[in-house]
Amino acid sequence: MLSFESDYIKGAHKKILERLMETNDEALPGYGNDCYCESAREKIKEACACKEAEIFFLAGGTQTNMLVISTMLRPYEGVVAATTGHVSVHEAGAIEHSGHKVLEIPGHEGKMDAGELEQYLKRYWEDSSHEHMVFPGMVYISHPTEYGTLYTKAELEALSKVCRDYKIPLYLDGARLGYGLMSQDTDVTLPMIAKYCDVFYIGGTKVGALCGEAVVFTRQNMPAHFMTMVKQKGGLLAKGRLLGIQFDTLFTDDLYFRISRQAIETAEQLKEVFREKGYRFYLDSPTNQQFIILDNKEMERLQKEVRFDIWEPYDGTHTVVRFATSYATRPEEIAKLRELL
Amino acid sequence: MLSFESDYIKGAHKKILERLMETNDEALPGYGNDCYCESAREKIKEACACKEAEIFFLAGGTQTNMLVISTMLRPYEGVVAATTGHVSVHEAGAIEHSGHKVLEIPGHEGKMDAGELEQYLKRYWEDSSHEHMVFPGMVYISHPTEYGTLYTKAELEALSKVCRDYKIPLYLDGARLGYGLMSQDTDVTLPMIAKYCDVFYIGGTKVGALCGEAVVFTRQNMPAHFMTMVKQKGGLLAKGRLLGIQFDTLFTDDLYFRISRQAIETAEQLKEVFREKGYRFYLDSPTNQQFIILDNKEMERLQKEVRFDIWEPYDGTHTVVRFATSYATRPEEIAKLRELL
Amino acid sequence: MLSFESDYIKGAHKKILERLMETNDEALPGYGNDCYCESAREKIKEACACKEAEIFFLAGGTQTNMLVISTMLRPYEGVVAATTGHVSVHEAGAIEHSGHKVLEIPGHEGKMDAGELEQYLKRYWEDSSHEHMVFPGMVYISHPTEYGTLYTKAELEALSKVCRDYKIPLYLDGARLGYGLMSQDTDVTLPMIAKYCDVFYIGGTKVGALCGEAVVFTRQNMPAHFMTMVKQKGGLLAKGRLLGIQFDTLFTDDLYFRISRQAIETAEQLKEVFREKGYRFYLDSPTNQQFIILDNKEMERLQKEVRFDIWEPYDGTHTVVRFATSYATRPEEIAKLRELL
Amino acid sequence: MLSFESDYIKGAHKKILERLMETNDEALPGYGNDCYCESAREKIKEACACKEAEIFFLAGGTQTNMLVISTMLRPYEGVVAATTGHVSVHEAGAIEHSGHKVLEIPGHEGKMDAGELEQYLKRYWEDSSHEHMVFPGMVYISHPTEYGTLYTKAELEALSKVCRDYKIPLYLDGARLGYGLMSQDTDVTLPMIAKYCDVFYIGGTKVGALCGEAVVFTRQNMPAHFMTMVKQKGGLLAKGRLLGIQFDTLFTDDLYFRISRQAIETAEQLKEVFREKGYRFYLDSPTNQQFIILDNKEMERLQKEVRFDIWEPYDGTHTVVRFATSYATRPEEIAKLRELL
Repeated sequence: MLSFESDYIKGAHKKILERLMETNDEALPGYGNDCYCESAREKIKEACACKEAEIFFLAGGTQTNMLVISTMLRPYEGVVAATTGHVSVHEAGAIEHSGHKVLEIPGHEGKMDAGELEQYLKRYWEDSSHEHMVFPGMVYISHPTEYGTLYTKAELEALSKVCRDYKIPLYLDGARLGYGLMSQDTDVTLPMIAKYCDVFYIGGTKVGALCGEAVVFTRQNMPAHFMTMVKQKGGLLAKGRLLGIQFDTLFTDDLYFRISRQAIETAEQLKEVFREKGYRFYLDSPTNQQFIILDNKEMERLQKEVRFDIWEPYDGTHTVVRFATSYATRPEEIAKLRELL
Repeated sequence: MLSFESDYIKGAHKKILERLMETNDEALPGYGNDCYCESAREKIKEACACKEAEIFFLAGGTQTNMLVISTMLRPYEGVVAATTGHVSVHEAGAIEHSGHKVLEIPGHEGKMDAGELEQYLKRYWEDSSHEHMVFPGMVYISHPTEYGTLYTKAELEALSKVCRDYKIPLYLDGARLGYGLMSQDTDVTLPMIAKYCDVFYIGGTKVGALCGEAVVFTRQNMPAHFMTMVKQKGGLLAKGRLLGIQFDTLFTDDLYFRISRQAIETAEQLKEVFREKGYRFYLDSPTNQQFIILDNKEMERLQKEVRFDIWEPYDGTHTVVRFATSYATRPEEIAKLRELL
Repeated sequence: MLSFESDYIKGAHKKILERLMETNDEALPGYGNDCYCESAREKIKEACACKEAEIFFLAGGTQTNMLVISTMLRPYEGVVAATTGHVSVHEAGAIEHSGHKVLEIPGHEGKMDAGELEQYLKRYWEDSSHEHMVFPGMVYISHPTEYGTLYTKAELEALSKVCRDYKIPLYLDGARLGYGLMSQDTDVTLPMIAKYCDVFYIGGTKVGALCGEAVVFTRQNMPAHFMTMVKQKGGLLAKGRLLGIQFDTLFTDDLYFRISRQAIETAEQLKEVFREKGYRFYLDSPTNQQFIILDNKEMERLQKEVRFDIWEPYDGTHTVVRFATSYATRPEEIAKLRELL
Repeated sequence: MLSFESDYIKGAHKKILERLMETNDEALPGYGNDCYCESAREKIKEACACKEAEIFFLAGGTQTNMLVISTMLRPYEGVVAATTGHVSVHEAGAIEHSGHKVLEIPGHEGKMDAGELEQYLKRYWEDSSHEHMVFPGMVYISHPTEYGTLYTKAELEALSKVCRDYKIPLYLDGARLGYGLMSQDTDVTLPMIAKYCDVFYIGGTKVGALCGEAVVFTRQNMPAHFMTMVKQKGGLLAKGRLLGIQFDTLFTDDLYFRISRQAIETAEQLKEVFREKGYRFYLDSPTNQQFIILDNKEMERLQKEVRFDIWEPYDGTHTVVRFATSYATRPEEIAKLRELL
């Protein structure tokens, strides 16, 4: 059986497991105060070209979104997100459960438009009853988006400008950040993200780690006593080394970028196969997630030999499905898929 | 200065103040356990033709929505509402602050469509990743809606059926319920509401009381220890008599209905005046709130002599405004307005 | 039947109902923006001799405690209170429900000791694992306490000093503040309370109002957008006039103080009666609540003719009970009680 | 430098890392639906001799306590715990942050007394104002306790009986459960725990795992949609395999018990060394945590060569310190410590 259903089906990059082995017998302090966490933080700062960055390691994406958003918002504020944003749809209401509304504005293939954002904020502040409404207190975007699409440098800059004009932080969810940065169709770099965003996270779980996301606060704006709030919400690992060692490994010798590039290469091969075989793309994704429109009968046939993700109905007889590659996808798997199509 | 900006600009119906005076020296138990609360509950049950109803008095509308919704939902559930619903927009995120998402579906002049609701629920349950999403656990409608519109009996019945098919409660926000029931264009009665809804509230604040809303649980479904949860959220008045006496008065000799009818009569006169003078209506409202499209210059001129509510921009040169009558509006005020238009 | 079970068994002071009547037909803005709220705020500032005070009216005591505490604390902080504090015991967990721990330290006849508070804070900050514990972020005291006792000026000053040394606000719950200020055994005045406390509230519900408490922030420290947060928690009354008119009346011609003094006078008569008849006092209370130790048989006999509050078992054959006077207690009632004892 | 400061200073048992390596390339479903999670669940059920058990894997102890307690309690309920309980003191207020009060009763060397618990529950239900108080809705104990002490079978049975009499669940925090079960001074077995408790967890983080705790619901009482609530609180790992593989390894060939026994053996050696050298024990702990009273000067001297945990001041010149062994402690380390004392 071939597996393209997601980018978190394998364990971790081999190098990570090796480092866990090598460091296993060292007695280290808990809660993220060990030397590997410290080293990983330094390497990430450097990769971001952001000396003043503050970095905190968390275990997963929903946890990260919930913690960053709920600790940076004031109680009367909500977070603006695209209707298709992960926080809007697929996190079981984690943001609302933390007490904050997700203020949804239209998504365009997963992306938020800076002009529409500005309109939204302007209308809010002009509304005479705005004090009876939820204050927009932060903007959430994902990059790559839930549809695999990417913001351009100009788009990020425009969003950043709107946020600064309205004095609210811009937060970028980088669950698949590596795959975005290594895309062939991007002019966005990690230092740019650190420059345009007030906070973002570098996803580990979907890019080679067993678990773990690195939150980067770029303006000395990590909320006071963030660690205590992480503990309070149940997100603090006693053995913080588990996250530190993984990120230290990923940011040694550019491993994070190299394995992300591999995933992009297999994604490009995947696209080529689908294109060659005449399949229809639901949209044009330059990253590791590819959305294909399948005839329902064809879909059923394929499901017997390949695992992929059912995205949503397209029409009465077709379905949008997702094929994802990852750092662990091998060219042989693409070759086998080609034979099946 | 004429005042049509809202239906809560005056104190209370005179009869209510008189009853507060008459009963003032009686020593009564606190927290809603007094004889007036008890009497009011009995009268409301009778008016609803619903013997098994359980009734709880609360101080205001947002408090009521938040308490009913948050105590009836389970933690993983959200409430489905129209995008224009009061809980979606104008309660400062009270529902989200209590931990629950408002699941918004399109509103049609403030109303939810039963067919669209069914589609929404169906799609949710068919989605293979629905366990990572917020479960729709209740449906919220307002009657009259925020746009003054009303559901028909058939529409209410259809919504009720969908809710029962999906085993989730239907909750009706009756902040202005009296004005809906006394409209000339309705086939809906209070017993029908008790029949079709699992829980609803009869608004007092906007219909003659100083404060107060009567929540009616129609299926012996008041959450266990509701009083303790009301206390816990800061909503329990020590002198519950303040609410009991008001509702006892409103439901004696049909006062609630008689004063609502008056408001409808002045609203009809108001409509007539606007129609006669050639003003454009934003929509057709059969209740006490009327939405007019004003030329911005005309609006500025009028604002010098009449208070009304700025609703939203219509286009570059026009604005939607709201004129509201209430139980306290006198025909002379309509006559004066006529002169000004 | 005589009624001494609590200080909230009657309606309101007659003057308040009269003012509600007189102002009933005035069209006033909602949500606390009316002229009566404004006037009441000015009068309270003057009575507190605190020009920079910010005042907000809320409906009840638990609501006030929950709103003040939860909006002034940061998420990782809790409030320090005596084990017998109202917030510790009798508010159905409202503080915890808002996400914050009540950090209990011993009470002494309801009072907190400044030295013990300092010890507690010192130990907390010296604990090497304090970042895994709840930060003490505020101190809560009640005056009069739940046992009717009062802080002296020196004690208040000492508590205030500890709080300032540790840079945390001192909050005083004044549900029965009038009865404390008018006690014959106090050297504490309202301006002193404004001076020593960072925030406190002047209780209305138990001192002549139908409902209502006036929160006083004394250092320009009202949390930003407090009104929106009040709305969000369901505490904002549409007809804010109900609270404004009551407090405006209470703070006109010293009504609040005069009616409090009356309650103290009847309380002194009550004490005299119990003393004269040889009853044992549980503790010495200089305010309107008196705690008596009754033989259980005597208690049963009395309960047939007088209502009072069962406080707690004293020993196998005795019970502590509470008799409360209020602004509405008349000397005849004390005389009648005397006959029964 | 010798390290006895805690039982989470090393990575994981070697066997666990090996299994992670061996299974690394397998494509597995996410969120705990993989075959290793399933296998681990089966093995744990068997070890508990509890066929109907439902098992859920979480990442850490505070997360587990918060999730179990907050999803099993109703909003108006709190959890009863000893004043020294981990949830009472060292979880940064996680329980209160989830909306629930920790109802503290005295601890005796970390243990709760069944008689005192019963008294507490009895008094609560007899209190006439109990509906204004937090309902006791669950009992929390830890085994071993925070002081390393253990309940006897009879004590557990007595606590269980009280809980059943009052119809509230008994929850046991087994962060260090292995060390409790393998103590030489216990008559408690894992099946007994499953029998007497309604829910408990088997700690992994402190007993050989990189991270992970296995929650066991013993009465088919796992809250409905627990997974969605875990997700909502940010506790759901995408790569659930990380937890499944670890617990599957720990419960293969009794590894969990064998490594726990080793820790107990080194703890016994540690005790022997301290006894031999004439040190004073703060209390008698039969598990892996040992509490010693050190002279402050001696403490400073030792700190230069050994890491241990400062527990609390004993008196002006002495301090209580904690030495912990773990599955990874080697006899050589005890030998070296002996030389230093």
